[in-house]
Amino acid sequence: MNRTLKVLTLALLGVPLLLAAHPAAAAVETETAFVLNSFSFLVHGFLVMFMAAGFAMLESGLVRSKNTAAICLKNIALYAIAGLMYYIIGYSLMYTDVPEGGFMGAISFLYNPSAAELALINAETATPEMVKAVTDNGYSVMSDWFFQMVFVATAASVVSGTLAERIKVWPFMIFVVILTAIIYPIQGSWVWGGGWLDALGFSDFAGSTLVHSVGGWCALTGAIILGARKGKYGADGSVHPMPGANMPLATLGAFILWFGWFGFNGGSQLALGSALDVAAMAIVYVNTNLAAAAGVVTAMILTQLLYKKMDLSMALNGALAGLVSITAGPDLQNHLLAIIVGAIGATLVVFAVPLLDKLKIDDVVGAIPVHLVAGIWGTLAVGIFGSGSLVAQATGVVAIGAFVIVASAIVWLILKYTVGIRVGEEEEHLGTDRTELGMEAYPEFGRGSQTI
Amino acid sequence: MNRTLKVLTLALLGVPLLLAAHPAAAAVETETAFVLNSFSFLVHGFLVMFMAAGFAMLESGLVRSKNTAAICLKNIALYAIAGLMYYIIGYSLMYTDVPEGGFMGAISFLYNPSAAELALINAETATPEMVKAVTDNGYSVMSDWFFQMVFVATAASVVSGTLAERIKVWPFMIFVVILTAIIYPIQGSWVWGGGWLDALGFSDFAGSTLVHSVGGWCALTGAIILGARKGKYGADGSVHPMPGANMPLATLGAFILWFGWFGFNGGSQLALGSALDVAAMAIVYVNTNLAAAAGVVTAMILTQLLYKKMDLSMALNGALAGLVSITAGPDLQNHLLAIIVGAIGATLVVFAVPLLDKLKIDDVVGAIPVHLVAGIWGTLAVGIFGSGSLVAQATGVVAIGAFVIVASAIVWLILKYTVGIRVGEEEEHLGTDRTELGMEAYPEFGRGSQTI
Amino acid sequence: MNRTLKVLTLALLGVPLLLAAHPAAAAVETETAFVLNSFSFLVHGFLVMFMAAGFAMLESGLVRSKNTAAICLKNIALYAIAGLMYYIIGYSLMYTDVPEGGFMGAISFLYNPSAAELALINAETATPEMVKAVTDNGYSVMSDWFFQMVFVATAASVVSGTLAERIKVWPFMIFVVILTAIIYPIQGSWVWGGGWLDALGFSDFAGSTLVHSVGGWCALTGAIILGARKGKYGADGSVHPMPGANMPLATLGAFILWFGWFGFNGGSQLALGSALDVAAMAIVYVNTNLAAAAGVVTAMILTQLLYKKMDLSMALNGALAGLVSITAGPDLQNHLLAIIVGAIGATLVVFAVPLLDKLKIDDVVGAIPVHLVAGIWGTLAVGIFGSGSLVAQATGVVAIGAFVIVASAIVWLILKYTVGIRVGEEEEHLGTDRTELGMEAYPEFGRGSQTI
Repeated sequence: MNRTLKVLTLALLGVPLLLAAHPAAAAVETETAFVLNSFSFLVHGFLVMFMAAGFAMLESGLVRSKNTAAICLKNIALYAIAGLMYYIIGYSLMYTDVPEGGFMGAISFLYNPSAAELALINAETATPEMVKAVTDNGYSVMSDWFFQMVFVATAASVVSGTLAERIKVWPFMIFVVILTAIIYPIQGSWVWGGGWLDALGFSDFAGSTLVHSVGGWCALTGAIILGARKGKYGADGSVHPMPGANMPLATLGAFILWFGWFGFNGGSQLALGSALDVAAMAIVYVNTNLAAAAGVVTAMILTQLLYKKMDLSMALNGALAGLVSITAGPDLQNHLLAIIVGAIGATLVVFAVPLLDKLKIDDVVGAIPVHLVAGIWGTLAVGIFGSGSLVAQATGVVAIGAFVIVASAIVWLILKYTVGIRVGEEEEHLGTDRTELGMEAYPEFGRGSQTI
Repeated sequence: MNRTLKVLTLALLGVPLLLAAHPAAAAVETETAFVLNSFSFLVHGFLVMFMAAGFAMLESGLVRSKNTAAICLKNIALYAIAGLMYYIIGYSLMYTDVPEGGFMGAISFLYNPSAAELALINAETATPEMVKAVTDNGYSVMSDWFFQMVFVATAASVVSGTLAERIKVWPFMIFVVILTAIIYPIQGSWVWGGGWLDALGFSDFAGSTLVHSVGGWCALTGAIILGARKGKYGADGSVHPMPGANMPLATLGAFILWFGWFGFNGGSQLALGSALDVAAMAIVYVNTNLAAAAGVVTAMILTQLLYKKMDLSMALNGALAGLVSITAGPDLQNHLLAIIVGAIGATLVVFAVPLLDKLKIDDVVGAIPVHLVAGIWGTLAVGIFGSGSLVAQATGVVAIGAFVIVASAIVWLILKYTVGIRVGEEEEHLGTDRTELGMEAYPEFGRGSQTI
Repeated sequence: MNRTLKVLTLALLGVPLLLAAHPAAAAVETETAFVLNSFSFLVHGFLVMFMAAGFAMLESGLVRSKNTAAICLKNIALYAIAGLMYYIIGYSLMYTDVPEGGFMGAISFLYNPSAAELALINAETATPEMVKAVTDNGYSVMSDWFFQMVFVATAASVVSGTLAERIKVWPFMIFVVILTAIIYPIQGSWVWGGGWLDALGFSDFAGSTLVHSVGGWCALTGAIILGARKGKYGADGSVHPMPGANMPLATLGAFILWFGWFGFNGGSQLALGSALDVAAMAIVYVNTNLAAAAGVVTAMILTQLLYKKMDLSMALNGALAGLVSITAGPDLQNHLLAIIVGAIGATLVVFAVPLLDKLKIDDVVGAIPVHLVAGIWGTLAVGIFGSGSLVAQATGVVAIGAFVIVASAIVWLILKYTVGIRVGEEEEHLGTDRTELGMEAYPEFGRGSQTI
């Protein structure tokens, strides 16, 4: 169901009807529910916002030191661009006046507070009618905007890691503009905006497909069109590891993402104004945590069995795989299922990482396995363990995949044959920090950014 | 009082009674209180969850670079394992059907949402009776589970730092399984589950003893059984400093822990659904902050006086000592007392660190002084400054200490004489990152992980 | 309006009046509003607290490695000192019994919970009168204290970065004591305490002037009195860059600050207990985010145009400039204005950084441009785009500027001519980590702290 309508239904039909019918039930009153619903968007929104820092640290830790400053810049810039574009056009395209079963929302610009809210805020004396005009919406419009905005930024964050160490900074920024202004909102309108995939029964609670796979498809098309890093793959099919420069930062990044994911999935309950909502939200928190935990343990055990050593980056990616997998359906009512979903997600990632290398698709941080592969799995899992239909789920995966592959490939190719998307060989050897930014990330540390 | 009962009493007896007697008092209605109580568990729970990142960064910063990746892996793995074990068995052992004055709860598996909650969530049309069946509990059951789960993980986090740089990864993981599935829940049931120590009047608001000292005792038995790092102590009694490789990360870790502690102590008010609760919670926040602040300043002044230099790691441990000290009784009604409690805690740590070295107990990050020594002090302080009885407090410290020492020593010894717990000399020299994980944490940074 | 009175007015006059006049309006009941108002202070307060970690990481990343441990120590110590001094005297000086149009509050010590709150908490059976005596205040007194306390710490955090790499640690600490106990609270009482500048109509929503410029003025007087780092400026007017040692940490710091700023500005709505409040708060969140985003993009574009390269530290400072700029008036009702305010703030910073160098004022991290220049701009912007009067805004900027310049200069000069504020030349060359703390921040990393 339309994300916006869902909370309206709960707030306006569910609880108040109870109240009317049974005044003794002491249900949450309308204005209190409005405050709680809106505050949930703000609190969970700031958690998701912090995931931008998580991606920045994860990717900073997993690239080589000569490309670290550039990845930092890309991460803060993409978060900034995502917010601006979503304000300028994205939110409207995704949520405003999407026709029943439609393919996109309104082309209108500069989303702002509602007239009712401004009237209430600016009133000398607020009347109950003014309050009612505001609370009838179920939540404050800008609290919802804020919560939806941080999701766009997450989709964009997925892309930067895969393409690190060889992409030019400005063309990457242009791609982010188009992704967050147009590509993400259009496919988002199909489901959360109440468009055709929603009408079909496709279900994606917090965005295994709508956010993570979308980022993953863009990363995949980009990686193919951009090509692998120089020296990554030998002519003989050999793979040369290029280990990340700062593993504790990568670990911090994974922890921050896990932390922020309580906002991502928990806030996607979209309401807090009733016992039902908070009980359901708590279930979402628990499933989110258990799926991630299962992902870590699965990745540890599998790498031990396969390679006779544990692997820290695989454990981190195992956590993220568990998180991405559970995101489409974190409302599972038996928590054991969340453990199974997360464990399968991590298993897929452990096998997808070497598979990509075999295909010579160079994904610097493993974002394609984590966000795309586990995202597809999580979406299908809703049809297996959850309340969704497997056909509808598969339809959504394919439809959104096809749209994003085509749209993103067109953008990458246009960029490639106009401004160019890849730094020169010499620049790649010296590192993008020096050539694109004229600086070093760690100017005093040892072998540093010159070598390797 | 039993943690679960406490909030029930407040939610069901306190506030609604007022409401019934004085309808004009406009008390918080039952369902709103339910939402607020549950949301407090979720918000404070995610703060405590983030403490896992704090421990990871603190320990990453304080070990040498050749053991950094291993400590990162241990930290994310222990958080994952703690959550899984607490779901599988731990929570039930601690909270389900603990007999009045008893020694443990039910041996039942896979804790899941209540039937009443599932009925409400799955209902086509929710009836007031369904809502009442849920709100009668005072809070959502899984929100409480989530909040309690993150505490187990904290206890486990304490152990990894002390034993760093020489313990094998997998045996450590097995220890964490047993700690979080059995040892922690059993002693927890004695107090927070409503068992025999609770009946005796022992009081531990947020876990100076139940969480921090428990971790500290496990670390102490582990450190003794495992032995000191090669070269740490000379035959002549000399102590060789092995400074941490990344002090800003350690600083970040301390800040994250301080941040998360507002969840740890504030959330342990266990309710938010009344003016009383939120006023008391605010007092807890303030005491938590002042005790930590006093710990920092005390440690700085003392190290200046004792060693003629300030010491950053002691300042960080001073903050943590203040936090651990106030955790048993952060509800002090005169904030000056919190400053005193924190200052004494930090003083004890400043003297306990060299004392441990004198005893040749090798604690890599200072976790035993911080979590065990300050934890004992904080628990006793409740009997001195707070509302507790000193005899009851001392009884709790001794009883839980004895239980955890014996239980953890048995586990460590079994592990030692079966799979072994210590890496070989060569492995220790090369670093556990290479030998256990086959990687380096900072492969590009200078003298790096080969040496020292 | 007085910060304390503002929320009282909303809670006691606004909403309850509605309730009385129109019982059907189902407004938020008094005690629920009390809980929500207080909880907002706690949640937003912990976010602001975490900004201390943000400053610590930003500054750790931007100094050279030989001064990193010292800056870490200064940051955790100043947060600790700020909290203690604000408890001992600061809060009372700022908020207790400030005369209408007055110049400071009460000289009273050790701020503690109200008698009404303690009576409620300690009651065997709480009466509705007891609850009413507490809820009449609109919020819990210590929740407000906590929220105000973290703001003092922010002001102090601004100072440490500018003066890094050459200031002695203990004299810096003494300066922080006086800043947080006396200077900050006195000027704060003029506006948020309801003193003379508030009477004049000066408006500073969350502290562009009261917090950020105050820190900036102290940094400026300190930088002038302390002098530039040895070798920073050549006799020929040349400027020698001294790049920061750890750019991903600086990036993390900027992200943490951005994250915490939702607490800084959002919490400054000072209430959450009505639809009006939460709708207004959401607007604040959105403006805060858009201004920062505009700051990043503006700084990126300008540095590309001016220097033909993008600059990561300028992008980070652009974000912070946007944040500081919007802080005086984040309640703008057209979000496009927030983008403009943030973009202008970042533009000023891009030009102020080289200007300071021309003036040979050595600001290690760029805190003066970001917090002082953008702070002044943001305060004036309220008179241009917002509801304030430009004359009143300028008066406030000048009055607080003059007071803080004089007061801070006196303190710096007294410190200079008594204990001394600057380390010796040899100490500066070796780095303050070794000479002040006797340690290294990164003892294993390459060229490390000896050189440069």
